[in-house]
Parts: sequence; structure tokens; C-alpha cells
Amino acid sequence: MNNKLEIFDSTLRDGAQAEGISFSVQDKLKILKSLDEIGISYVEAGNPGSNPKDLDFFQQAGRMKLGHVKLAAFGSTRRWGIAVEDDDNVKSMLTADTPVVVIFGKSWDFHVTDIIRTTLEENLAMIRDTVAFFKAHGKEVLFDAEHFYDGWKANPEYALRTLKAGIAGGADCLVLCETNGGALPMEVYEITRDVVKQFPGTRIGIHTHNDAGMAEANTIMAVEAGAVHVQGTFVGFGERCGNANLSILLPTLQLKKHCPCIPETELGRLTHTARKIAEIANVSIPHGMPYIGKSAFTHKGGMHIDGVSKNTASFEHIDPELVGNERRMLMSEVSGRSMVLKRIHRISPEMTKDSPETKAIIARLKELEMEGYQFEGAESSFDLVICKHLGKYKPFFELDHFKVIGEQPPLQEGLSSTAMIKIKVSGNDEITAAQGDGPVHALDRALRKALEVFYPVLRDVHLTDYKVRVLNSRDASAARVRVLIESTDGEDAWTTVGVSTDIVDASWIALVDSIEYKLLQQTENLHEGLTVKENT
Amino acid sequence: MNNKLEIFDSTLRDGAQAEGISFSVQDKLKILKSLDEIGISYVEAGNPGSNPKDLDFFQQAGRMKLGHVKLAAFGSTRRWGIAVEDDDNVKSMLTADTPVVVIFGKSWDFHVTDIIRTTLEENLAMIRDTVAFFKAHGKEVLFDAEHFYDGWKANPEYALRTLKAGIAGGADCLVLCETNGGALPMEVYEITRDVVKQFPGTRIGIHTHNDAGMAEANTIMAVEAGAVHVQGTFVGFGERCGNANLSILLPTLQLKKHCPCIPETELGRLTHTARKIAEIANVSIPHGMPYIGKSAFTHKGGMHIDGVSKNTASFEHIDPELVGNERRMLMSEVSGRSMVLKRIHRISPEMTKDSPETKAIIARLKELEMEGYQFEGAESSFDLVICKHLGKYKPFFELDHFKVIGEQPPLQEGLSSTAMIKIKVSGNDEITAAQGDGPVHALDRALRKALEVFYPVLRDVHLTDYKVRVLNSRDASAARVRVLIESTDGEDAWTTVGVSTDIVDASWIALVDSIEYKLLQQTENLHEGLTVKENT
Repeated sequence: MNNKLEIFDSTLRDGAQAEGISFSVQDKLKILKSLDEIGISYVEAGNPGSNPKDLDFFQQAGRMKLGHVKLAAFGSTRRWGIAVEDDDNVKSMLTADTPVVVIFGKSWDFHVTDIIRTTLEENLAMIRDTVAFFKAHGKEVLFDAEHFYDGWKANPEYALRTLKAGIAGGADCLVLCETNGGALPMEVYEITRDVVKQFPGTRIGIHTHNDAGMAEANTIMAVEAGAVHVQGTFVGFGERCGNANLSILLPTLQLKKHCPCIPETELGRLTHTARKIAEIANVSIPHGMPYIGKSAFTHKGGMHIDGVSKNTASFEHIDPELVGNERRMLMSEVSGRSMVLKRIHRISPEMTKDSPETKAIIARLKELEMEGYQFEGAESSFDLVICKHLGKYKPFFELDHFKVIGEQPPLQEGLSSTAMIKIKVSGNDEITAAQGDGPVHALDRALRKALEVFYPVLRDVHLTDYKVRVLNSRDASAARVRVLIESTDGEDAWTTVGVSTDIVDASWIALVDSIEYKLLQQTENLHEGLTVKENT
Repeated sequence: MNNKLEIFDSTLRDGAQAEGISFSVQDKLKILKSLDEIGISYVEAGNPGSNPKDLDFFQQAGRMKLGHVKLAAFGSTRRWGIAVEDDDNVKSMLTADTPVVVIFGKSWDFHVTDIIRTTLEENLAMIRDTVAFFKAHGKEVLFDAEHFYDGWKANPEYALRTLKAGIAGGADCLVLCETNGGALPMEVYEITRDVVKQFPGTRIGIHTHNDAGMAEANTIMAVEAGAVHVQGTFVGFGERCGNANLSILLPTLQLKKHCPCIPETELGRLTHTARKIAEIANVSIPHGMPYIGKSAFTHKGGMHIDGVSKNTASFEHIDPELVGNERRMLMSEVSGRSMVLKRIHRISPEMTKDSPETKAIIARLKELEMEGYQFEGAESSFDLVICKHLGKYKPFFELDHFKVIGEQPPLQEGLSSTAMIKIKVSGNDEITAAQGDGPVHALDRALRKALEVFYPVLRDVHLTDYKVRVLNSRDASAARVRVLIESTDGEDAWTTVGVSTDIVDASWIALVDSIEYKLLQQTENLHEGLTVKENT
């Protein structure tokens, strides 16, 4: 296959229907810009009839210079029993002043009679009139046949008549909607194929939802059956389980089905664009999301790591660079020696797998893993283990003593803990104290305060993430915990790990690693090795 | 279709390959129990050859009474150039003493020549010998044809010969693996159909990965093409983008394709089981996950809410109760009310949805949820909220003050924290102190010590589980944490929850709930309501 496909993004309309998502006008403008940059053909950006905020957006968006995107407003057919030109919703869609409008109407007889409660004939007239109205105003009109597949399964003849009503009104494209998301690939293929046959020369589109986990598969099947217009949302946001995810569909259609969707040069922006949109929406992308997730090209099993080291095609369906993502090899008890050696080489390229240092590092790694350490995602702590065995490490300070006191009722609201700490740097003592919201917060503040006296560079370092995992939790409150700490100096970010039965102690270990890693980076001879990007 | 399907779960083996997942032996036993309860046929639980920790698991699992599950050990074919009975990996699989073994071998010629680097003929012998070895030891043997689909696309004749080698060895089932996760539904359908034709009377299985977002669709297509054995992981955990998600496949196959997979009565446990497994893995289920996600049946758009209020089939592909999930309406104030009412009825059957107490409880719940509380899996804390609003609660003690001190170096090995506490019960003071391994451990001990003076029944109570989840972790070490505590008195078990920016405070809240719940149970008039099993 190599049909050119029209890509239609509804992040700003259907995507905004997802639980927890609420876009400001500024958010929407930023997302529109990203979609335009990556080369999306259509962006459906709101329903000016149902949401006055959308009108403000359309006015501002109308002034933007767009290279690829045609903007679309979305709205219902006229209501039953009134003339199209008297329908407020219909009129408000004109005010959005977009080159494209999307009109949705009912294709499932049950929805006509039981939900909007009109006659089957009136519903056909509503579709025809509304499409014709916008055609008369010079718009490109897409007819969204809502619940088309369920409608076809219930009453294929009537479902077909709704499409014909769209054509009679002059629709430029008939979009078959799998609104409830429950259809399966083979039926979507067969129904779409039958519809395509009925309307030779008409553009057929596909719009799916993910309630049975089939949104992308159903879209691919519709394309195989002849659909040439593909609707979705960029990261899959949408009502309930979401819409078809364009960040999965674009590479699948373009790389595997060879259907041009966006300019070939732009596919490498895929991961960046998806993560940016998710960031604007304040949603985390699940690590395992195909193509764009953090783990999408991450290898953990020893045999997988060995295979990918020999030939990446052994366990990767595409090259991650094609979609702007990256390959990562995790350190873990199931990962092999070759991975460890690779990490050692970043610091000491002369080591071999038989060097005594390599063997000692691997032995230490196993010991630490038995204690509950896990270095995947905490490669900086792992680098410190390596440095300690290669003689490339010197302690930057000595802990004399710390004491953390928490109490209830708290002495001061929001400052329930106090930490005192005494450290020694090159023979000089420093003793100080700090308060915080909980023991780790107080200890972090006190340690930094003491160390900044000697290492002013630490002023730029702060924690950005803190994670706790209880191991062997059956032993309850004295269980072993693993703490992961992510730090940044505003430029680089690094993650360290600590394990202990005492959460304060585990946090302390990770905190110390975080600080030592930063200070070690300053040391000339390690600079090269350690500033290589994480996880490469 | 209504073929009976064999369901094979690999959460404990392939699932453990996911980034960030690391199961303890106890975790694995708990997951095994959940999988057995819901009626899974096969559980693949580890690779005793590559991981000694797995052997410990198999020994303990062997002593469990399982109603449905047949346990399977997983391992490679013998290595090239040595006899099967001399291969340590092969031998170690026997020590797992499982009724079923899964042998994986290469079906893609490129992997044979370029990754494991042996001859095509030797690879066939490796498959045949290894399968035959385990058949001779009386095992049910599944042959996992790794990379089968990529292999078929590269060299169909050789891929087929690897299956025939499995048959020659006596394999009971040929599992076609879509290892790299890049295949599309139509090709999976066609290839599977061709294979099924070649092996009449042989059970054909399907094992897919989600790298192109097609894992579940490809599985459904393989079943349509004649596969009768379905592999996946319960929440989709797995290497890179994960494996086929059984919590999507089970309802899809059972409700939509009418293929029996698990006992019909158990499908209603689906959501509970998936969330429990995710909780054990300390992984959050994405809200939009089909069937089991929090948003899977959540309606936000006004027209959707209107439609669902008239007839739920208008915007729901299945009834959420069929999979143990629930409908939520985000715009509506009655959201979740029926669920809450159900729980209230266990304590006060006379309450209605319009009782002022019901309204007050719902309002309080919303407040707590805003603060980060989540009562899924912490129903005992939820019962306490109800009791407080029904006047069925009286405080069992008053906290005057506590102080927890942690220090390094510790005063005594393994006792890094000291807690002092002063409480009041019916006008009598009790002040005491205890040491522990970390602040929560010390505080737990001190509180019990003080309370046991007044409530000897607490001597039987102890903590069995302790979990910490960092919420909004971007705020780093002062982030809000949610602590879950599971307690037992040797007979019943109950779970309580606390949320705070201070981990000691969050643990304190959950500890107090745990103790108060136990004491409340002693009160005659609540006994009936509260001793009903959790999660019913």
C-alpha cells in the first residue's frame, strides 16, 4: 500500500473530553503550533457552539501562520424540527471562521429514536440540511457518521442512508465513527470495505475509540479496506479509554504500510511532539507506550541485551531514531555482563570483561541486587560503584553524625521535622541544622546547607523527583525500602538509589550519591566519561 | 465463535522483564494466588536456570493448593554443541518440578545465524532434543517459537521446520511468538491461518508484544485464525511496550467472541484482580486502560452523560459491572453515590441516597480524594469515615504528643530510631518509648506498647504490609505520600491509608486507623457489618 492519507488530529476537541484534561486557550495554541510543525493536515479545535472559550481560540488561531494545518470547527447537525439557519449552534460554528467544518450526525437508528428522540426521516433531513448549509457557505465539510459501526450492525440499510444524506448535502468526506470503541478489527475491515465499495470516488474516513484496546488496530484495518482519512488524537487522549493514538498510527502507517501521512523529514519529531503535548496537558505518558514511551526501546532481559548488541533488529521492530526516541539498556539481575562492561567503558575504555576490576564490579553489583538495589533508572549510583572500584573516587565529605527529630503536634505548621548534621571536609568541621516537612526533607536541607560552605557549585543542585518502593513488604513497617532520587543542576539530570530498612537511611544513601555524583563530574579526568547522556 | 481457549499468564516471567518491575518471592506468591482465584489455566512463573530466586518461589508455590492454575517453568532449548542432558539450564528447569515447561527456540533464521550463531540444522536439533527431553520426564511441553512471524516473513520454509522440530520432539502446543511486537493484524491473521492448516489436530498458541500497539488485536486475529492457546500478562506488563494484556483479552474474547476463557462467574473479579496485581507491582494502571481503568466507563461530555442517563448502551460498549468496574459521571454530583451507599448499607442498612449522612459522607470523600486519598484497597479506612459520620465511632485514645528521633551512626545496630509517645485513654495517661529500624517502625512499636495497657486485644494485631506511593513527585522530597498499611489479628486482615507531605505523619494516620478499626470491631453493634470480608 502507498495511498497518501489525510491525518486529522482532534486532541483539542475529543482529547479535551478525557478525564483530567482541561486546556487553556494558550495551551491550545501551543499544541496547534506543534501539530502544524510536524505536518498534520487537519486540526479539529473545538465546538464554538457549546463552548464560548473555543471562539476566543479560533480568533487567535486565525491570526497564526500555519504551514500544514487546515483548522476545523466541530458541531452537531441542526436540532430536529427547526430550520438550519435558525439553529444557534449551527450559526455559532460559522463565527469560528474556519475553512473546514465537521458535522456529526446519528447513524445508529437506536440513537435517533431513543436518545435524540426524533424520526428516522427527520434525522436524515437534519444531516442533509446541515451539510448543505455549510457547503453553501463555502466550507470543506466532513460528515462524522457517529456510531456508524454499531449502526451498521443494528440496521445496515439505515446506516447507509445516513451516509447518503451526507453526500446529498454535498459532504467532502464521510467519516465512519466507531464511537463506543467496542468493535473488533475484522468487523471494522469488512464493514469499511463494504462502505468504500458503495461510494466510489468519495473520501472515506475512520474515527475510532479504544474501549476494547483496538483503536489503532481498527484504524489500520479501515485503511487496509480503503479509508484515506484518519482521525485520532496525538497521544491518544479522549473520552473514557481515549481515541486512536496518532503517535502510534503515524509511524505504523508511514513506516510499515508505506502510506505518506506527514512529511518524511518530520517523523523524527514524533517523540518530542508527543511528549510536548503530554507536558502541556500535564499528563504522564505511560513508559510502555509504543514508539514514544520511555521504555519503548528499552532492553532489560540478558538475552535481549545480548541480541541487540549484536544486531538491533534482533529485538527492535524499528530503529528508535526514526521516531526520535532512544535505545536504553537496563542494568538488572537479568541483564548480562556485556551491559555492565559497556557502562564501565564509558569511564575506563581499557577494561575488558576479564579484568579483575570488571569481575569485582559485577560481584559487587550482584551483592547490591541481593540487598534490594536496582540500578535501572539509577545509572548514576551505578557509575559511582564503578568509580569506587576503579580508584576514581574519593569521598568529598565525612559524616560525623546526624540526628532527625519528628514530632506531633509539630512545632510549626508544615515543618514537622528538624535535622542536625555535623560533617567534616578536609579536616574542617561544619555543624548545622534545618527544618523540613518530614525527616527526608529536613535532612536534605541540612546536608546541602553544610556542604555548600565547601562546594558552592551545589547551590544549583536540587531534587526533582523522589520515589519510594517498599521491598519484601510482608515484614511490614521494618521492611526494606528502595528510594530513588532524581536531581538536576538546571542542565543535566541524574538519578541515584539507596536501600535500607530505614527510610531515612535509604534516602540518605541516595542523597549522598546524588551529591557525590555531581562533585565527581567536576573532577577533570572523569568529566568525559560521566557527562555522556544518561542511559546511552 | 465459541472455541474454549487456554489462558496462559506470564506476569511473573515476561512481566518481570518490564522496566521498573521487580517481584519478591512473596509478591509472586500473592500474584499466583490472584491468578488462580480468577481461573487462569497456566501461569509461567520464572526461569530457574537464569535466576536462583525463582527456585525458591517454585518450592513455595509447589506447596500451595491451586484450583485452576498449572504452573510452568520457562527456559531455552539446550545450547548448541552439547547434549541436552549436560545443559545446566535444562537441568535446572527440572528442579522447578512443575507439571508444565515452556521451551523457547529460534524460528527466525537470522537469529540462528547472527545472534546465537549456530547452524540452521543444529538449531532444529536443539528444539527437538530439548522438547523430547522434557516429554521423557513426563512434562506437558509448550514450544515457544520465538520471532515466529518475523521468521515466517523472512524464510517461511525454515520457520515451519522449527515448528516441525517441536512436533518431532513431542510438543503439546506450538506457540507462535510475535516477539518484536511490530506485526500488523492482517498479516498475523494470514500467517496464523496458514500455520493452523499445516498442523491439524495440534494446539496452536499466540504470544504477542505491543510495540506497534497491536498486541491485543493481533491476539484476537490469531484466535479468529484458529489459535486456541492465548498468552499474555494480566495488566500487560512486559519488556519494552509490554505483552498482550489479559485484562483486555479476557472480556473481549469471552463477551464479544463468546470463547470461554475463565469461569463465567469470575469475570466480575477482573478489575479487582488487575488492580491488585498492579498494586503488588507498585505500578499505576493508566486511567484510560480498557475495561479496568478508572476512566474506562467515565463520561465527561454533556451529550454523553445525557445519552448514558437515557440508555447506558448509547455510549458504553459493555456494562461495566460485567468486569467489576464502575460507571462514573464527571459532571454529575451523584458520581459514585451508589457505590458509597452500598458500603454504607453494610453498617447502616436504613440509610438512603438522600439521607443527610450519606450526603455528608460523599462530601467528605470528595475532600479526601482531593488530598490524595484513594480507598480502593483501603476499605477499612473508608468504613471509619462512614462510622464517624453515622455517630458509630468514638475515639479510643487521644494523642498528647510523640517525638521520633533517628540518627546516624545509629546508637545500636538495626535500631536507628527511637520514638517517645504520650497518650490518654479515659483520663489515664500513658507515656512510653520504643526503638525500631526507622521512624515508622519505632513509632508503631511505641504506640502499641502504650495502647496494649488499655486494650490487651491489640497484642494479636500486627502489620503485614506497608506500601508507600509518592504522589505529585515532581515536588521532590517534600512531595505528598500515600501510605497503605495492611494489618492482621491472625484471622482477619484489613487495610488502612494515610496521606501527608510527611511520611511519618502519613504512616501515623494509617496506623491509628488500623488500630481503631480493630477496636471498633469489638463493639457489639458494629460486629456484623464490619467483619464482612474486604472487597465484597
